[in-house]
Amino acid sequence: MTARIAILGASGYTGAELVRLIASHRDMKIVALSADRKAGMAMFEVFPFLRHLDLPKLVKVDEIDFSHVDLCFCALPHATSQEVIARLPRDLKIVDLSADFRLRDPADYEKWYGAPHAAIELQAEAVYGLTEFYRDEIRAGRLVAGTGCNAAAGQYALRPLISAGVIDLDHIVLDLKAGVSGAGRSLKENLLHAELSGGTHSYSAGGKHRHLGEFDQEFSKIAGRPVHIQFTPHLLPMNRGILATVYVKGDAKLVHETLATAYAPEPFLQVLPFGALPSTRDIAGSNYCHIGVIGDRIPGRAVVIAVLDNLTKGSSGQAIQNANLMLGIEETAGLMLSPIFP
Amino acid sequence: MTARIAILGASGYTGAELVRLIASHRDMKIVALSADRKAGMAMFEVFPFLRHLDLPKLVKVDEIDFSHVDLCFCALPHATSQEVIARLPRDLKIVDLSADFRLRDPADYEKWYGAPHAAIELQAEAVYGLTEFYRDEIRAGRLVAGTGCNAAAGQYALRPLISAGVIDLDHIVLDLKAGVSGAGRSLKENLLHAELSGGTHSYSAGGKHRHLGEFDQEFSKIAGRPVHIQFTPHLLPMNRGILATVYVKGDAKLVHETLATAYAPEPFLQVLPFGALPSTRDIAGSNYCHIGVIGDRIPGRAVVIAVLDNLTKGSSGQAIQNANLMLGIEETAGLMLSPIFP
Amino acid sequence: MTARIAILGASGYTGAELVRLIASHRDMKIVALSADRKAGMAMFEVFPFLRHLDLPKLVKVDEIDFSHVDLCFCALPHATSQEVIARLPRDLKIVDLSADFRLRDPADYEKWYGAPHAAIELQAEAVYGLTEFYRDEIRAGRLVAGTGCNAAAGQYALRPLISAGVIDLDHIVLDLKAGVSGAGRSLKENLLHAELSGGTHSYSAGGKHRHLGEFDQEFSKIAGRPVHIQFTPHLLPMNRGILATVYVKGDAKLVHETLATAYAPEPFLQVLPFGALPSTRDIAGSNYCHIGVIGDRIPGRAVVIAVLDNLTKGSSGQAIQNANLMLGIEETAGLMLSPIFP
Amino acid sequence: MTARIAILGASGYTGAELVRLIASHRDMKIVALSADRKAGMAMFEVFPFLRHLDLPKLVKVDEIDFSHVDLCFCALPHATSQEVIARLPRDLKIVDLSADFRLRDPADYEKWYGAPHAAIELQAEAVYGLTEFYRDEIRAGRLVAGTGCNAAAGQYALRPLISAGVIDLDHIVLDLKAGVSGAGRSLKENLLHAELSGGTHSYSAGGKHRHLGEFDQEFSKIAGRPVHIQFTPHLLPMNRGILATVYVKGDAKLVHETLATAYAPEPFLQVLPFGALPSTRDIAGSNYCHIGVIGDRIPGRAVVIAVLDNLTKGSSGQAIQNANLMLGIEETAGLMLSPIFP
Repeated sequence: MTARIAILGASGYTGAELVRLIASHRDMKIVALSADRKAGMAMFEVFPFLRHLDLPKLVKVDEIDFSHVDLCFCALPHATSQEVIARLPRDLKIVDLSADFRLRDPADYEKWYGAPHAAIELQAEAVYGLTEFYRDEIRAGRLVAGTGCNAAAGQYALRPLISAGVIDLDHIVLDLKAGVSGAGRSLKENLLHAELSGGTHSYSAGGKHRHLGEFDQEFSKIAGRPVHIQFTPHLLPMNRGILATVYVKGDAKLVHETLATAYAPEPFLQVLPFGALPSTRDIAGSNYCHIGVIGDRIPGRAVVIAVLDNLTKGSSGQAIQNANLMLGIEETAGLMLSPIFP
Repeated sequence: MTARIAILGASGYTGAELVRLIASHRDMKIVALSADRKAGMAMFEVFPFLRHLDLPKLVKVDEIDFSHVDLCFCALPHATSQEVIARLPRDLKIVDLSADFRLRDPADYEKWYGAPHAAIELQAEAVYGLTEFYRDEIRAGRLVAGTGCNAAAGQYALRPLISAGVIDLDHIVLDLKAGVSGAGRSLKENLLHAELSGGTHSYSAGGKHRHLGEFDQEFSKIAGRPVHIQFTPHLLPMNRGILATVYVKGDAKLVHETLATAYAPEPFLQVLPFGALPSTRDIAGSNYCHIGVIGDRIPGRAVVIAVLDNLTKGSSGQAIQNANLMLGIEETAGLMLSPIFP
Repeated sequence: MTARIAILGASGYTGAELVRLIASHRDMKIVALSADRKAGMAMFEVFPFLRHLDLPKLVKVDEIDFSHVDLCFCALPHATSQEVIARLPRDLKIVDLSADFRLRDPADYEKWYGAPHAAIELQAEAVYGLTEFYRDEIRAGRLVAGTGCNAAAGQYALRPLISAGVIDLDHIVLDLKAGVSGAGRSLKENLLHAELSGGTHSYSAGGKHRHLGEFDQEFSKIAGRPVHIQFTPHLLPMNRGILATVYVKGDAKLVHETLATAYAPEPFLQVLPFGALPSTRDIAGSNYCHIGVIGDRIPGRAVVIAVLDNLTKGSSGQAIQNANLMLGIEETAGLMLSPIFP
Repeated sequence: MTARIAILGASGYTGAELVRLIASHRDMKIVALSADRKAGMAMFEVFPFLRHLDLPKLVKVDEIDFSHVDLCFCALPHATSQEVIARLPRDLKIVDLSADFRLRDPADYEKWYGAPHAAIELQAEAVYGLTEFYRDEIRAGRLVAGTGCNAAAGQYALRPLISAGVIDLDHIVLDLKAGVSGAGRSLKENLLHAELSGGTHSYSAGGKHRHLGEFDQEFSKIAGRPVHIQFTPHLLPMNRGILATVYVKGDAKLVHETLATAYAPEPFLQVLPFGALPSTRDIAGSNYCHIGVIGDRIPGRAVVIAVLDNLTKGSSGQAIQNANLMLGIEETAGLMLSPIFP
């Protein structure tokens, strides 16, 4: 059986990435695409790189007949997403790629996103979509909230270490380098080629980045006590990829062993040999996450470096992985594409 | 039946691209990989982006037992390729990606490549590998010579126009813009990031580029008279992609119609609506070639613009398309991957 | 005596480039900066790279007292520029960087820019600002119209050849490669890093680019008959630089000699040895223009390649060169900065 | 009086940057340029961007008559530098840009650079060239050792904080992002455009980077006790620029105030307002260093971010600043060039 798929918000990068990946997924078929401001256009007019595909026209959300949809990906901006999802059928399987249903406590949402949540009753139902750590809940879930792309990278580096108690919870520094597609297709001066290429800067430094809401929620839950990490993201002149450099206090060999053991069964999470350093180039365009661990010359300190593609494993690839679970399809279906290099 | 594949010269970009593509090809399996100077290494040590694949170790060519190989891709440098291929079994199906067997006349080879051909007897056997125009010969061939990547782009823009006699054969200007992966993984100063990024220059200008040998051979053959085009390649600060801007004298609408009609049945050659302009971004990582035609304000002149990915449709993708034909596999097998954007 | 300078439209790239260059100009001092929507801000808030300079605040045009200004650079968008300049004192020396006063015939302006000219009386007064060819008029002028950046590159390649009658006027093809800063700091989707980097495409192809108005005007004037060239610009993933590849019919050696002789006395126009190919990297950030000439293998055909920095020699550097003439300052003052590489 | 300058090792990036800067320095004149393997070539053949300058030919070191040289910049690779300098006249003023004379203790040199020092007697004479902190010694010095570019960035962020005792010396994490020109013009696979662009990775992680030798030496000296920081450099797809993100424990406001006070008199070190985040784009091509400080949400933690251009303030600009002091020229002479943007 082929699952019938709708994608809401298909005119953004995560929407286009969903289309790209589903195009080679044997068990999914796109039956509806929405993009409010571009309704009426063909997808190839918005994204000419998808010209070779036979796709439905872009429509407004309200024009979609969801009775013929098995699962809906929602790739809308946050705040918009919760309003739209609140109007969708209550039995429709949904994978939301926005930030709207990631934070369990509505007060946390309001704190980090600056406005009260408009669909609190749905929030209760939502499952946090970090696949490898919420498989059972996702399989049984109706509404799955995709994680932040930075949040995914940081959690892959840290969750097993916090669970196993092998690092100092009060001294975690996450210095993150992100490609620009994570900021979406929005028209902002600092995203112009002339402004961005050839240089770098940090942003949302000092504990202001919204993905800290996810880190706080998840790490504190695992640890059974409040955990607050330091987190400084930097914008790099590259389109895809996140590299998370995480400074921890703990025995480096034990840190490596803990991660390697935890991820041994995982198809997409690859822990490199001790001392090897990953590169974003080696996962670009794919659903893989590479993780390296190295010891510092100062005993008792280690550096964990995780790389993933923000549009794939950090967003649309993760969404499909979750959708596969929700639909009873093999988890890796449509996601075994190799990275592209150079 | 799964075809058993060997790749000689697997440590270069076209070798790695073959591996990437074959990894999702249902009817091919890699059984041998050679790389003389890196023999003994694992492929993921040379190309960490292939870490997720289960691949044979790199060996020297002489270590391969070709009796268990159904088809061999030869991704070696020119000159080396002819020597190696001369030593391979005479009944082995071979797709050569080098320049060694592209020129039918050994004198042409010597003229453009500066040394006599060392395997002239094999040259007679070789089929020129521009798939869409040599399908029958390729299907029946044993040794297929992949085209130059620039040569492919230029020919897709021009062949049907020359065949149909709709352009002036004495006034063809091909101004080409090429990404840097076409130059391979060689250590040259002008290929360094610090030298290449942020600027552009032309090279081999004035009729010196070796792919002119292919243009001369093919266009003259089609026209039944000598045809010499002007060809100026430029190196651009991008990794993948060729954009060929071709200035022709002829009726623009007729030029468009001729190309659109010729390529209507082709799965990978897409002629855009009249006046639409293609972008290399829309075919990166894929086997597609987009072609646009626009009329100039000067009556009787037209511009044809063709884009393709030099590593895929211009080289390794083409090679697999040809191998599919040679092996009796569906021509598009393993090649329907979407481009990647952004 | 230090000339007191005002810059209108200081929040764009050409405005900022003017400030950068004037900062090391001994005989100019900036006394006023305007930017309507950013009035009230400090220049370093709009362009942090100018933080080290002591500059006047950004104000609205109407707040400037022009009686204390010796020369005004107008770096406003076209259409806006003519309106603003019409309101300025009629004895104020002005160098306009917009397209508004480049075309002598108001009908041409309307044809290429789609609206009637709003300051026709000023148009009559305007001098075309291609310094090397209009020195006397510029020296005596009050209102000088800076050329288009692409128009400058093309004219440097071609003017002496047309004057000398050494090329076929009916077969000139200009294939141009431009960096993205030429498009300004405007928020357009295709100027985003994620859209632009890593690829290329042509735009305004087929005789639609507005700089053709300048080519037509100037080349026809020199030739004494209508001259229409073919012109296809391409947008490249680089910030600064234009490379103009010009295909001409004529004797290549004579073409080279004509250019070399014409430009021998020019401080900024450097003709390379016959056969040498210029690179945009070698003039980035400077007021230099490098020109190469090479013969084709087809006798009687030559390729002229000119490179310049669109923001410097193509715009703000040219503007200062013209202002130097208008103010009786040494022509090269403030413009002898070396390019920056890598 | 104009100082007569020799540059040894003029065919590398720091050599070319010295030439670029000295070209607009009123009190220096280049009288000799060496480049062993390229001896006999003109500088513009090695670096065409310097074509407009009238420069001496490249020669071998031994061909230079140092009796007519006032100061010699040595831009040779480490290890080579000490051998060459040992053969130069003992009264010649020298600014060495290599790593050879940075570490006071020869044992440290051997530890970090893997071979015994070949000119130990000269080492005793060498002054560490971080201008702002060694002005008097540099002024009086004969042999000044330029700092590592990463070492400069890190020290600008940290020295005043260590001196003032406002941060915890046992918890300093320096996460550094570096452009590729810092690696020089060497032919290495990972420096190719195709390998480097579009991605990032860390290198020399875990306490292996040689600039740690400088950090250890300098910070321990200031603190009067051993100080060992954690240092992880990352290579970014950009040509110029270093961004050092430094995580410290201390009161953020006090950290900011300490840096702002310390650097208030410095012409090139600019401390941004509290909370402002610097960008490498804002200092590219210039001798400026911008420093930002921000508090973390965790009380008692701060992030200091310093940016500088590795080729200018991190290397050749610093060298000229030091040479100015040694020659009795104004310290800022030739160094007030604005950054270039975009």
